[in-house]
Amino acid sequence: MSVLVEVTRGFRVESWHMGAIAVVDTDGNMVSSIGDVESPVFPRSAIKGLQALPLIESGAADAFDLSTQALSISCASHNGEEIHVDTVKSMLSACGLTEDALECGAQSPKFEYDQAILHRNGVQPTAAHNNCSGKHAGFLCFAQKAGFDHQGYVKAGHPVQREIRSVLAQMTGVALDGDAWMDLCGTDGCSIPTYAIPLQNLAHAFARFGTGTDLSPTRADAAKRLRHAVAKAPYMVAGHDRFCSDVMGIFAERAFVKTGAEGVFCATLPDQGLGVAVKCWDGASRASEVLMAAVLDAFLPMSEGEAVAMEKWRSNKLINWNGLHVGDVKLVDGALSHLMQKKTV
Amino acid sequence: MSVLVEVTRGFRVESWHMGAIAVVDTDGNMVSSIGDVESPVFPRSAIKGLQALPLIESGAADAFDLSTQALSISCASHNGEEIHVDTVKSMLSACGLTEDALECGAQSPKFEYDQAILHRNGVQPTAAHNNCSGKHAGFLCFAQKAGFDHQGYVKAGHPVQREIRSVLAQMTGVALDGDAWMDLCGTDGCSIPTYAIPLQNLAHAFARFGTGTDLSPTRADAAKRLRHAVAKAPYMVAGHDRFCSDVMGIFAERAFVKTGAEGVFCATLPDQGLGVAVKCWDGASRASEVLMAAVLDAFLPMSEGEAVAMEKWRSNKLINWNGLHVGDVKLVDGALSHLMQKKTV
Repeated sequence: MSVLVEVTRGFRVESWHMGAIAVVDTDGNMVSSIGDVESPVFPRSAIKGLQALPLIESGAADAFDLSTQALSISCASHNGEEIHVDTVKSMLSACGLTEDALECGAQSPKFEYDQAILHRNGVQPTAAHNNCSGKHAGFLCFAQKAGFDHQGYVKAGHPVQREIRSVLAQMTGVALDGDAWMDLCGTDGCSIPTYAIPLQNLAHAFARFGTGTDLSPTRADAAKRLRHAVAKAPYMVAGHDRFCSDVMGIFAERAFVKTGAEGVFCATLPDQGLGVAVKCWDGASRASEVLMAAVLDAFLPMSEGEAVAMEKWRSNKLINWNGLHVGDVKLVDGALSHLMQKKTV
Repeated sequence: MSVLVEVTRGFRVESWHMGAIAVVDTDGNMVSSIGDVESPVFPRSAIKGLQALPLIESGAADAFDLSTQALSISCASHNGEEIHVDTVKSMLSACGLTEDALECGAQSPKFEYDQAILHRNGVQPTAAHNNCSGKHAGFLCFAQKAGFDHQGYVKAGHPVQREIRSVLAQMTGVALDGDAWMDLCGTDGCSIPTYAIPLQNLAHAFARFGTGTDLSPTRADAAKRLRHAVAKAPYMVAGHDRFCSDVMGIFAERAFVKTGAEGVFCATLPDQGLGVAVKCWDGASRASEVLMAAVLDAFLPMSEGEAVAMEKWRSNKLINWNGLHVGDVKLVDGALSHLMQKKTV
């Protein structure tokens, strides 16, 4: 078990986080790792890019003429801002449905600023505000194109989830066929199944997602279109003041990064042919963000300007209610050099 | 390092938390402990009970005729509900000041429900909404009674903070005199100094706070009045859906429990003559609450009805956006029996 992130206050360490990191190439070779990358981990929303593949592979994205914004939000854990909600509604409208078809549950926008708009207007948040509503709108477009009854599309037995399970098995190499998935399954915040998969397999899946290696032409093209869409419309994948939107705004198609609940992060660096998977064991996003920033520092060549732009996420400043800088969430000394040795440590 | 709390999803462990627990008697003997209880830890808001002692010892509480509610909120990390804000304003008014004198910084109420009231009314949150405003109002009452210039009362060199440092040194046995405090000091969220103190010393301080052991009659009486006030007005110390208010609502003067930021919790069980201090090393309150509930299970005799009422806090249910129970934050097997052996493990 490795302490990778420390939380300082003044000159002292107040708290700390343990985690694991897998960096894998397109052949599945471990390029660098820290901690346990072999135990199954729920990837949660960090694999939304993989879960969106059937939306394109099925022809639904073309049939419903989905925009770049729509493809980006199909991979999103968004803030529930007005622009996110409107994009989701346009996807549902395109496939002949309304937000009543969403089965993700109502959720308030992430930040108080956006909640306040609803409060002032006397509007209740709906399932369209749910951070997963773009992914769910993508599921519904897929179901409509494929001719499935969309009711119950979040359930493990529904054809939508069966297809996603098949995609995940193919991409990660983890057996999820027959009943094998049942022991690996939990229910996600938005009610779809989530399957526990080792970090090394998640990282390999993202190396292939980023490069198309060993994928069918159809799948390789679908992955490329999703990466392109998120790079062109990074605000859709998260929103204001969020790691994923900021970082893809900086690096565009050179980095596809996606956070998930409980301290998970996945990424691919296509030009380097690398996939990445991160887990902070206590589930803290403040730590998984710092870890993902460290992976980018270690493996993604960047200009001085890009390195400066990343500073905000490399070390998460703790600012108190009077605006004083009282501490930092930051990588422990030595962790970056471990990663950069580019071998298993 | 001890994994004490696990976060499950379905039948799998998704995340976990490490922590330390010290249970100490009035003589400073370790009754039970898990993990490192000797390294200094920032106690943050978990010691607000100790920080409120000068409010009573100085005669300010009597001079300004402070209510039971006011004494309770002087120990509080409250939700910023209307009743909390009103109580704080009444304390400030009693000592001849307004909320402009508060130096804790503006903070929104903790929960969206209370934020929404402000949004609908077009009201900006102020320092009176800050979760620490009750403590700060107590500081200001103390400053006014003592005749100090209240400006800068949050600074380490101000007589208010000097007196609190003296109280903490006496109660915990940690040297904070001269310049000794400087190496132990960080700045809290509300801008006052916080001093790193080992869990074993914090626990001993609370054993004395709960029993009056080895305290002057004035201090023993002040501690008793604060414990009595919080037991009589537990809603003031936190508010809706909060561990501290709920638990003191159940046990009244049989348990004084107080949370702090970054996974700290302190308590005293006066009838048992015990003090308690807990730290979740990654800073998660969801874990420190489960640990404090475990300490109560282990050391506080309770009726069947009380044990049932504690269930909500003993295991923190994870409910998703559709209201499904998808997992739990709960004590690991074996941790409770370790604690109940009533000796250092």
